Amino acid sequence: MNGKIRLAEGGGGEATASLIRELFWSRFRHPQLLRGNDAAVLEHAGGRLALTTDAFVVTPWRFPGGDIGRLAIAGTVNDLTMMGAAALGLTAAFIIEEGFDKSDLEQIAASMAAAAAEAGVDLVAGDTKVVRKGEADGIFITTTGVGTIAPGVRLGGELARPGDRVLVTGTLGDHGAAILLAREELGLSGALQSDVAPLNRLLLPLVGEYPGAIRVLRDPTRGGLATTLNEIARQSGVAIRLREAAIPVRPEVRGLTELLGLDPLYLANEGKALLVVAPEAADAILAALRRQPRGSRAAEVGEVLAGNAGLVSLVTASGGERIIPLGSGEQLPRIC
Amino acid sequence: MNGKIRLAEGGGGEATASLIRELFWSRFRHPQLLRGNDAAVLEHAGGRLALTTDAFVVTPWRFPGGDIGRLAIAGTVNDLTMMGAAALGLTAAFIIEEGFDKSDLEQIAASMAAAAAEAGVDLVAGDTKVVRKGEADGIFITTTGVGTIAPGVRLGGELARPGDRVLVTGTLGDHGAAILLAREELGLSGALQSDVAPLNRLLLPLVGEYPGAIRVLRDPTRGGLATTLNEIARQSGVAIRLREAAIPVRPEVRGLTELLGLDPLYLANEGKALLVVAPEAADAILAALRRQPRGSRAAEVGEVLAGNAGLVSLVTASGGERIIPLGSGEQLPRIC
Repeated sequence: MNGKIRLAEGGGGEATASLIRELFWSRFRHPQLLRGNDAAVLEHAGGRLALTTDAFVVTPWRFPGGDIGRLAIAGTVNDLTMMGAAALGLTAAFIIEEGFDKSDLEQIAASMAAAAAEAGVDLVAGDTKVVRKGEADGIFITTTGVGTIAPGVRLGGELARPGDRVLVTGTLGDHGAAILLAREELGLSGALQSDVAPLNRLLLPLVGEYPGAIRVLRDPTRGGLATTLNEIARQSGVAIRLREAAIPVRPEVRGLTELLGLDPLYLANEGKALLVVAPEAADAILAALRRQPRGSRAAEVGEVLAGNAGLVSLVTASGGERIIPLGSGEQLPRIC
Repeated sequence: MNGKIRLAEGGGGEATASLIRELFWSRFRHPQLLRGNDAAVLEHAGGRLALTTDAFVVTPWRFPGGDIGRLAIAGTVNDLTMMGAAALGLTAAFIIEEGFDKSDLEQIAASMAAAAAEAGVDLVAGDTKVVRKGEADGIFITTTGVGTIAPGVRLGGELARPGDRVLVTGTLGDHGAAILLAREELGLSGALQSDVAPLNRLLLPLVGEYPGAIRVLRDPTRGGLATTLNEIARQSGVAIRLREAAIPVRPEVRGLTELLGLDPLYLANEGKALLVVAPEAADAILAALRRQPRGSRAAEVGEVLAGNAGLVSLVTASGGERIIPLGSGEQLPRIC
């Protein structure tokens, strides 16, 4: 490989996927790594474990609705949840720039503790490194989670089938829009907040209650719903068709994206999941989601089709249909 | 907490311990976190798991004897090994500065793959973030490992008993000295190389062969042998006395430390372990270590004493005795 690393290669879209394929998949040929899910599944004598890691570099580190500490806990809990895994323990490694305010660090630690309590998970190990002023931008946190997967649970991006329905647990684009607003100083203050939240208590009971009916669980973070659905369509070799009118987007998020020429489908979410479910269970699962506060705005937004493997499309409000490609749109660095 | 984060708070000594106590132990009261070992031990229905994480920020990222990739794999394998755990899987999260050379990144990935193959472990999940030029210094890698602990294995810094012997698996200070040399451009080129290496194949068989006789296994990384022994002396409520003449140090490391006024006992090691072992098994374990290439220079360097809980001392070549305190000496930022 020649050349220099570009910002887009960390954006979570096509450029990131290609970098990771070239750099890592060619050398680390573990089947779990190649599968491309949110967490790896490890079999051992005592059962199945899920293992996931994420580096959080969000800027600004504090934003409406949360901060990097809450994000680091929720993001890792959610990646475990998407594999149907209940967290056994989390770790956190901090890289802190010399001169960072200790009171801010305290606030981040308190926010992590509150998010961990909300999710009912434990932080069991950590590491702290300090680098000189100018060698990092404030604070970066890498969290890793290990969890147990109950016998019989099988979820994965490769399991969507024609006829399945696509559900989302709530409004889309809230995290990305909140970070944009916090960063750009557009003077558009208001109720717009990140949705960052752990989803294990909302989703794990459903995974147990509807064995086999939930095929795919994913949290559409970097790259948003569009990117995540493209990944699933490729992994499962199916097409996915969305109905624009059914997709819940807050008016303030819609307003911001129209102003900036962005598409909410590509904005990051940090407290939402998408589910691909068997058609016969779709209504019951949707109703169960809507009974929970974090799922009150859940909606069925599309369906899985045979043919055109890998294609994601959107039926617009006016009845036209357009392709939703991978990786265009969201080019925001350090959104999570 | 008031004030700003100082570099020393990432040095691995007293300042780091105090920061972590104030910031995290007060909020995350998990018993494993409070124990202060190299990895947390998690009990679940399927047995005991060890979980460990480390952020690697070493500069320069390439140094004689290794690079940040080899260090990230070896460091995590070794933390699992120190708990007697066989790795089930490793994760790696990359934070890369925009503009980093892709050919360098390839070299780091290749070096990680080689170290993983050497240790017989798998990288099963990862994450890649790119930050703008100037927002990080080259590349940071956080690795996490999960491993299984065989039934009956019990290791921990709190298990040293009076009468036990202290062994090291080889020469001390090689990693710290190599980084110093790589960084300072002292013109002292030569054979000095980091010892960075995975130790699982050297040590895990011994843990199985001498059940109960190995009380403590630790890798003396940041802060060196001195810091690690101080931690063990405190955790176990014992004193530890070293014999200077017995401690293996390469002449080129000794020369460099004398030149710079440093103490090899405080320099970081990345391919060495210290063992606290039952006196009746000490000779057999030492002989077994010496039969392996990575243990050929193993030595018995001291003993555990009752009384003076927490005190580490050194009997010098001239027969005097001096205290080896925690956290003085090593003040090198970004040594690992």
